[in-house]
Amino acid sequence: MRFANLITLTTDFGLQDPYVGQMKGAILKRNITARMIDLTHAVPPHDVLNGAITIRASYNYFPKGTVHLVVVDPGVGSQRKILAVMADGHLFIAPDNGLITLLVKENKIQAAYRVENSSLFPREVSATFHGRDIMAPVAAALADGMELDMVGPKIEVSACVLLDLPEPNFDENGITGQVLYIDNFGNIRTTITTAHLGHYQPASFSGVYIGDNQINAISATYSDQPEGELVATIDSAGYLEIAVNRGSAAQKTNCRKGDPVAVIMTSDES
Amino acid sequence: MRFANLITLTTDFGLQDPYVGQMKGAILKRNITARMIDLTHAVPPHDVLNGAITIRASYNYFPKGTVHLVVVDPGVGSQRKILAVMADGHLFIAPDNGLITLLVKENKIQAAYRVENSSLFPREVSATFHGRDIMAPVAAALADGMELDMVGPKIEVSACVLLDLPEPNFDENGITGQVLYIDNFGNIRTTITTAHLGHYQPASFSGVYIGDNQINAISATYSDQPEGELVATIDSAGYLEIAVNRGSAAQKTNCRKGDPVAVIMTSDES
Amino acid sequence: MRFANLITLTTDFGLQDPYVGQMKGAILKRNITARMIDLTHAVPPHDVLNGAITIRASYNYFPKGTVHLVVVDPGVGSQRKILAVMADGHLFIAPDNGLITLLVKENKIQAAYRVENSSLFPREVSATFHGRDIMAPVAAALADGMELDMVGPKIEVSACVLLDLPEPNFDENGITGQVLYIDNFGNIRTTITTAHLGHYQPASFSGVYIGDNQINAISATYSDQPEGELVATIDSAGYLEIAVNRGSAAQKTNCRKGDPVAVIMTSDES
Repeated sequence: MRFANLITLTTDFGLQDPYVGQMKGAILKRNITARMIDLTHAVPPHDVLNGAITIRASYNYFPKGTVHLVVVDPGVGSQRKILAVMADGHLFIAPDNGLITLLVKENKIQAAYRVENSSLFPREVSATFHGRDIMAPVAAALADGMELDMVGPKIEVSACVLLDLPEPNFDENGITGQVLYIDNFGNIRTTITTAHLGHYQPASFSGVYIGDNQINAISATYSDQPEGELVATIDSAGYLEIAVNRGSAAQKTNCRKGDPVAVIMTSDES
Repeated sequence: MRFANLITLTTDFGLQDPYVGQMKGAILKRNITARMIDLTHAVPPHDVLNGAITIRASYNYFPKGTVHLVVVDPGVGSQRKILAVMADGHLFIAPDNGLITLLVKENKIQAAYRVENSSLFPREVSATFHGRDIMAPVAAALADGMELDMVGPKIEVSACVLLDLPEPNFDENGITGQVLYIDNFGNIRTTITTAHLGHYQPASFSGVYIGDNQINAISATYSDQPEGELVATIDSAGYLEIAVNRGSAAQKTNCRKGDPVAVIMTSDES
Repeated sequence: MRFANLITLTTDFGLQDPYVGQMKGAILKRNITARMIDLTHAVPPHDVLNGAITIRASYNYFPKGTVHLVVVDPGVGSQRKILAVMADGHLFIAPDNGLITLLVKENKIQAAYRVENSSLFPREVSATFHGRDIMAPVAAALADGMELDMVGPKIEVSACVLLDLPEPNFDENGITGQVLYIDNFGNIRTTITTAHLGHYQPASFSGVYIGDNQINAISATYSDQPEGELVATIDSAGYLEIAVNRGSAAQKTNCRKGDPVAVIMTSDES
C-alpha cells in the first residue's frame, strides 16, 4: 500500500495555546515533507464520543493511506495504551479510550497494534504531553511509509476499549433516538441513521418529532422548505439531520444534546 | 497562464466542526499537491457582504493564478448557481449570490463561467454540502491547471447576482458613509474609500465624525496619535479606517456596524 | 547552515479576520515553496510577555533552521525596530519590544540584526500592517536561504528591548513565584522553573501552595492523583505546573494570572 504522506489532526486542545503547532513541529522533525490538515481542535475537553464522531464523519474525504492522528483525553501517565489501527485503508493513531468505537461497530478495522516501540519516540518524552512526544512521531513515521507492524505488538480488536453508544429504540410506532451533536450552524445530528430507517418500509414514514415540533417529510435538501422552517434530511455521513433553511434548528427547537428525537412509522396495512 | 497550485479558503463554517478539514480532503483527493491557505472561516453565517469584503481585501496578497474558494451561504439545493470567475489574474469559485460584487463594481472580471460539468464532481454529491462535494473538486482541478472553460458554459457578468452596497452620500459638506466592518482589534473599516475622498480637494479636509467623536486629521499610522486616542487612517485596502493606537476604536466610540461616519469637507473658497 | 524552508507564525491577530491569511500570501509571493505552521494567533492583543513565552516554549519542537515569525504589538509607524535574530540554531523575526526576552536571558542569542534593507520589501508598504508588508517577506527570504546579514546592520543584543520578567523570590522558607499563564485546559503555568527548584536540596521539598490549596508532592504525571485532585508537575518546558487530572486547576483554585504560588522548602537539618 502506498501512503499519501498526509496526516489529519483531531484534538481537544483548542487553538488558544501553541500545543497544536508544537505537535506539528514534532511531526516535521521526523518527516519534513509530511502534509498536515486540521480536522478540528475544538473537540470539547475529554469528549471522546465527539472525537469518535468527528473521525468517522470525516476520514473518508481523504485519500486512502492517510494517517489520522486523534488526541482526545489521552490519560497520559495512566495505564491507557496508544493504538495504531488500519481501517478501511486508512490509519488511525489514537489513545485506547473508545475513539475508534464507530470504526469497530461498522466492522471497518483491518488490523490493530499497540504503540510500544520506544525507539520511535524522541529521547525526552514529557510526562504530560504524549500527543506531541509519542503519537506525533509515530504518525509521522507511518505517513512516511514505515510498516504498521513496526509500532509494537499486534492486538485483538476485541481487546480495545469501546464506548457505550446511545442506540435508538425500535417499536411498532417507529424509532426513538436522540440529539447526538449540534454543529456551528445549529444543525442537529441525531443518533438515527439510514440503516435504522431501512428497518421499516420506506413508504411508511409519517413524521419526525423533536420537542413540540413535527416535520412531515425527509427532504433532499434544506431548500425544500421555506426560509426559517424546520427540515429533516439525511446528512452527508448518513445520519438523520434536522436543520432550518438559512437558520438554526437548535435555536428554533430549543433542544440540547441528548434530547429525544422520534421518527414515527405507520404500518402499511393500517 | 501558469497556475500556482494554490487555493485560498473563505467560509462561514467556523472551526468548531470538521467541515473545513473535509473540504480540504476533497481538494487533496483530486489534487494531492495543492497548497491551501485559510483566509478566514469566521465569516458570520450567511453574511455574503462580509465574504465579499474579505476576498476583495485579500486576494491581491497572493500570486496571480491563485484559486480563491469562497463558500458563504451557498443555498444548496436551491436554484442558486456556482460561478467560476477570472478576475485580475485570479480565479474565484463562489456561489452566485453576490460574493463577487466588489470585483464586478471595480471592473476586474475577465471571464465568467457557470459550474455545471458534473464529470468534475464525485459520484456521490450530498444534498447539503456543495462546498465540499462540488466547489472543492472544481477548485482543485483549476489549481491543477485545468482550463477554465471546462467547468461549464460561459456567461455574461451582467447575469450574475450583485449585492446592493451601502454607498456613501456626497453633499457640499462632505461625505456620509457608515461602519462597514469591525475587526478583532476593534479597528473600524468604513464604507468610505480613497476614491470617494478624491472627489474633493485634498486640502479641504476638516474632520472625521463618528458618534460624539471628532478626529481632526487623516494620519499615516496609528502611532501618530498618543496611546488611547482615536486616529483616522487609510487602511491597506484603501478604506478609511478609524482606530485607536494600542486600543479598540469600537469600544471607545461605542459604535456598531451600520452606524454613520462623516467626513467633513470645507470649500477652499470659504 | 541549511534551512528547512519552514516558517512558524505567532500573532495576536485572532482568526476572525483574514490578516493571517494575507500574511501567508505575502510569504508565498516571495517564496512559493515555504511551509507555514501556525503556533497560535490567540496571543491576547499587545501581550508581549505571552508572545515571548509562546515562542520560548515552542521553537525547540521544530527543526533547526526554522524561521519563527512573531507579530505581537509591533507598534507600526513608531520608532520601534524589527529584529532578525539567530538563537539556538533558529531564526526569529520580531518587533524589538521584548519578544526575545527569554531567549536573551537564557543566553541563546547567536547573532542579532536590525531589519532595514528596504529592497526586501514590496514597493507598497502599508502604514498599518508591517507584519504582512515587511516582516513576512523578510521571513520568506530567510526561509529560502538568504543570508541573515542581508536584512540590515548587525546590532548588539544589549541594545534590544527586554521585558521585566516577574522573578520568583527566594528565602529560607522556599520560593514565592506567581501564576504566569493559564492554558485552555485550565492548567496553570507558574514563574517557577526547574532551575529555581535546583537551588535547594531536592529532598527538602515540602509542598506547593496556591490560594487555600496545598499540594504535597511534585508528580511525574497528572494521573498520579485521582481524577479531580490538584497535582503539581514539571511541564514540558521546565516550568512548575499545577493541574487537575481530567479537570481545570484554574477553576478548582479560582486563581488568576499574577496570583502568588509558593514552594515550601524545609531545611534538612531541622
